[in-house]
Amino acid sequence: MCMKQFNFSIIKKLDNNLGRAGIIETPHGDIRTPSFVTVGTKATVKALTPEMLLDIGIQVVLANTYHLYLEPGDEIVKSFGGFTKFMNWNGPSMTDSGGFQVFSLGAAYGKELSKVVQVTDPSLLIPERSRDEGVEPLASIGNDGVSFKSHLDGSLHYITPEKSMEIQHNLGADIIFTFDECTSPAETYEYQKESLLRTHSWAKRSLNRHLELEAEKDDTVPKQALFGIVQGGRHEDLRKESAKQISEMGFDGFGIGGSFAKEDMSTAVKWVNEILPEDKPRHLLGIGEPYDLFVGVRNGVDLFDCVAPTRNARTGGLYTKKGKINMMNAKYRTDHTKIDEDCMCYTCKNFTKGYLAHLFRSKEMLAGTLASIHNLYFINKLVADMRQSILDNNFDEFENKFMLDFNSK
Amino acid sequence: MCMKQFNFSIIKKLDNNLGRAGIIETPHGDIRTPSFVTVGTKATVKALTPEMLLDIGIQVVLANTYHLYLEPGDEIVKSFGGFTKFMNWNGPSMTDSGGFQVFSLGAAYGKELSKVVQVTDPSLLIPERSRDEGVEPLASIGNDGVSFKSHLDGSLHYITPEKSMEIQHNLGADIIFTFDECTSPAETYEYQKESLLRTHSWAKRSLNRHLELEAEKDDTVPKQALFGIVQGGRHEDLRKESAKQISEMGFDGFGIGGSFAKEDMSTAVKWVNEILPEDKPRHLLGIGEPYDLFVGVRNGVDLFDCVAPTRNARTGGLYTKKGKINMMNAKYRTDHTKIDEDCMCYTCKNFTKGYLAHLFRSKEMLAGTLASIHNLYFINKLVADMRQSILDNNFDEFENKFMLDFNSK
Repeated sequence: MCMKQFNFSIIKKLDNNLGRAGIIETPHGDIRTPSFVTVGTKATVKALTPEMLLDIGIQVVLANTYHLYLEPGDEIVKSFGGFTKFMNWNGPSMTDSGGFQVFSLGAAYGKELSKVVQVTDPSLLIPERSRDEGVEPLASIGNDGVSFKSHLDGSLHYITPEKSMEIQHNLGADIIFTFDECTSPAETYEYQKESLLRTHSWAKRSLNRHLELEAEKDDTVPKQALFGIVQGGRHEDLRKESAKQISEMGFDGFGIGGSFAKEDMSTAVKWVNEILPEDKPRHLLGIGEPYDLFVGVRNGVDLFDCVAPTRNARTGGLYTKKGKINMMNAKYRTDHTKIDEDCMCYTCKNFTKGYLAHLFRSKEMLAGTLASIHNLYFINKLVADMRQSILDNNFDEFENKFMLDFNSK
Repeated sequence: MCMKQFNFSIIKKLDNNLGRAGIIETPHGDIRTPSFVTVGTKATVKALTPEMLLDIGIQVVLANTYHLYLEPGDEIVKSFGGFTKFMNWNGPSMTDSGGFQVFSLGAAYGKELSKVVQVTDPSLLIPERSRDEGVEPLASIGNDGVSFKSHLDGSLHYITPEKSMEIQHNLGADIIFTFDECTSPAETYEYQKESLLRTHSWAKRSLNRHLELEAEKDDTVPKQALFGIVQGGRHEDLRKESAKQISEMGFDGFGIGGSFAKEDMSTAVKWVNEILPEDKPRHLLGIGEPYDLFVGVRNGVDLFDCVAPTRNARTGGLYTKKGKINMMNAKYRTDHTKIDEDCMCYTCKNFTKGYLAHLFRSKEMLAGTLASIHNLYFINKLVADMRQSILDNNFDEFENKFMLDFNSK
């Protein structure tokens, strides 16, 4: 059997910005980029079957390493043939590194993140800082790795870059990510700099362990591609330094991490993508609102993942061409129109706003299903339309037209 | 346009018992009987799309009048073309009368049912009885109708047989039911007898109002069939008297109501069905466990509805040929087999017990969806197989074989 290998090729580049359209080949099929990546945290896209994902036009599913490590456990997932076989998704797949969740769930679940040192090697000590009085931290970051308490049962865990790779190899996605520290944009320059050293050291260690694990595989096991994550907060010198260092390590592609203030994202992404090698794919982590997607694509991003479309959907927040609406608004109870008149998703083809409003008010499970189908269709198609506009050389016109309508309410 | 009318024809009768196979024609398609009727309480079968119902092989959906009356309101449902258009179910449909829910939810939600008199006409007074000290009743039964508090918001409502018909005409199902009082088998003979007088009077009033409403319809509106409900508790004389009186009123079919003690059901159903006219369909209300379905079919029942398959499913209780299993059992976490190896449902064709166990433990919405698909497929197919065994003249063998396997664990 000749297994398809990871590959990226650019089909078309824009002249006036960094935007490009391409194709990522993976052992489980192609991803036409730019593409939205759907989040299936625990090996399920919440409330949807894999058939619904195909019907929506989803190309890639990303599962969260942190969640699957804790439940059911990566060894169990491996015994079922990896997370995609487990959930019956036959297309391309990704896992994140677990870093973001270790900090935001394990570390800071329900409280302010406290970055407190705990190290296995005292020489790796970084100064203790910003710990709230009387608050027991759930995670401790050392230069070797992170110890944290599970948000599920309070059990103690220790994740290193090497461990993250081992877990992600068990989960078996086509594309995996290096273990990084995801910092808040509110952090000081000094802390960002210190954290960046750690993220770069962890990237190298992730790569080394990944290559060892790849070398142990036989020909029947699909190869996995490893993306290195660029950090650096909102600081130009750190972002550029990170892009440069991560570029030189030899990854298959790149993630751009960190939380962004809205006004920073455009510049931060541009700084990074002007340095990253053009011939490898770039994934802007955790971003998925329409405006941000345009910013990303214009600045050379190929992949985006975000829980916003499904999370918003489950609380009644729906995207329309004319902006977002909330189905809990009383006026929709008697509304006989579709969510979006031109939308070709299953929900819009078959149901009215009035029915959706009833399902949400009745707390019916089908509400989340139908709303998630619509929102994923909307965001997935938006990025697919951006791709087409790149191929058609009218990206700017498409963006202007779309955002004018979207902000028109 | 020539709209198809309600009709029932028997295709085959068994020699050694009351079992029969037939076809009910409705304006929205045929129902091959015996048939399981799927409950879609609030105009949605919980966690499932209408396409999933078709894929499962569901023939009829029954919505609950009480729930839709309270939310979103029957006038709103009517404005959307009835509950089936509202939920995008194009097949045959039913609504119950609301009686059972008025007593069990409105009356007794969260507490013991207190039957306390409240009447609009003092001459209709029945004696106050069995009221718990210090417990404010949520429903009061008079001979004219029932006043009750909504379990949703505590608002006060008053339902009469006429009002139930008006609501059910707004909801627009192909088959609707008379408003009845559903008594507990624990009630005294005297109370059952008194209640039965009320149920018969309400049946006549339901029919009269139904005929008035039908007469007001023009040719573009599908006719609705009205089933009269037989009550009488566990008492032979009352059940027979009820069957006789309800038979003579001229209904399109019959419901057999009341809660049954397991050991009573067979005899009670037989008493009734030996009296009910053979050429009209009979629906055993709220019954759906395998053994009870066999009892019903053997004793001449054509239709069954029950929330058990979907309610069990949502808490991890799954039917298999070898009996019921619970997916929360820890042993299933690592189980690579299907729920039921020979089952052809979507869930069994695509997922393992281990994945289902993971979804249930993770409280993922997809757990309820996949489990409901399996359970509905199982119960729906079981009744369809009973039908086939009647046609093939081997009902007893089929029952013996099935129950032997089902109880084998």
